[in-house]
Amino acid sequence: MCDVIIPGELHIEERATASPFVVVPPSDMHKHFGDFLAAKDGVDVTFQVASKTFRAHTHILAAWSPVFEAELLGAMRQGTAAGDCIRIDDLLPEVFMVLLHFIYNGSVPEMEVQEEEAMMAQHLLEAADRYDMQRLKLICEEKLCSHLELRMAATILVLSVQHNCQGLKEACIEFLKSSDVLEAFMATDGFEHLTKSCPAALKELIMSKLATPLHKRRKLGK
Amino acid sequence: MCDVIIPGELHIEERATASPFVVVPPSDMHKHFGDFLAAKDGVDVTFQVASKTFRAHTHILAAWSPVFEAELLGAMRQGTAAGDCIRIDDLLPEVFMVLLHFIYNGSVPEMEVQEEEAMMAQHLLEAADRYDMQRLKLICEEKLCSHLELRMAATILVLSVQHNCQGLKEACIEFLKSSDVLEAFMATDGFEHLTKSCPAALKELIMSKLATPLHKRRKLGK
Repeated sequence: MCDVIIPGELHIEERATASPFVVVPPSDMHKHFGDFLAAKDGVDVTFQVASKTFRAHTHILAAWSPVFEAELLGAMRQGTAAGDCIRIDDLLPEVFMVLLHFIYNGSVPEMEVQEEEAMMAQHLLEAADRYDMQRLKLICEEKLCSHLELRMAATILVLSVQHNCQGLKEACIEFLKSSDVLEAFMATDGFEHLTKSCPAALKELIMSKLATPLHKRRKLGK
Repeated sequence: MCDVIIPGELHIEERATASPFVVVPPSDMHKHFGDFLAAKDGVDVTFQVASKTFRAHTHILAAWSPVFEAELLGAMRQGTAAGDCIRIDDLLPEVFMVLLHFIYNGSVPEMEVQEEEAMMAQHLLEAADRYDMQRLKLICEEKLCSHLELRMAATILVLSVQHNCQGLKEACIEFLKSSDVLEAFMATDGFEHLTKSCPAALKELIMSKLATPLHKRRKLGK
């Protein structure tokens, strides 16, 4: 096909049209890897998480996470990895399963019960931080922002500080600092939890509250 | 955050807003794999293509192509793969390099010279068919549709028949069947090439030409 068209002149090349005959679908990379995990063909590493066993592919995990890369390829170099079982004590099996699902399928499965989703997002954020998977961490942060409510705000704020999640921390402080929320929050166990676990975050919350000009606070009911 | 909003009533949960604080970037799966290939960490298979050597990861190739899967994991089961060198005699090294680039990065690199791009698309289509990579095959077909011109039409039509590319074949026939193109085409070596290499495609071209109603042919100058 010719890119330059001169009006009135016949360009044989112009006649060829690409789009009506061939349609290229979007990238199916995730499908390839998802199917590959489901088929379990060539799996070469086993994880023991509590009573559950998971099998996976060293290179695919290593491509996704520098921590997996160091652990698995490091062990491989020492000739100890192939077929070996790696024990993971600090993650729940259902969290590790979602982590694997994300690695192979590129998405976090939807959960029907909102509360379960919020709990999973907390655990998954810890796992994402542990394996240095930044995009998954942000997905969890975003999910937790949408689940912010009085009962969980302190836990999520502490979590955000522990795992260095700036965006989530700001969302928590913004949520908590309005007068009516703050008043209700101070009457909960969450406030006590925050005071004990993360006084720095409590200080930041108070500072943020004080930084809001009085006239604005009055106007906005803050 | 509360999904149900009752006007006039205060909903504490409504206050939390997700989007202003956390931004999740698009999937970076390709970047992970591209970087992983570039780092060459943990590569476990070597290909010798003419005078060039390429190193890659068995599982990543196997996830993308059922042919690589059968060849590499089959060999692995027999204990002959790790570290072994696989000789490839029927592909050019630059084509194999682009194939690897597609597998790890999910895209075909742009080429500056249009003719080189068209030649690469032809070779890559053959490689994609050999390794049963359907989306890459369609990408090559689409690229060839955009490069259709008199000199290459016969070669591309024969290629489309040999590799069962229905869309590309239809595009070639549609391009060639207009009277002025067909007349010019019949004076080229391409016509002879088509007659010898793929008489079935020539027959299809003539049938398609005849199937265009005469009044429409006149109207359209076909």
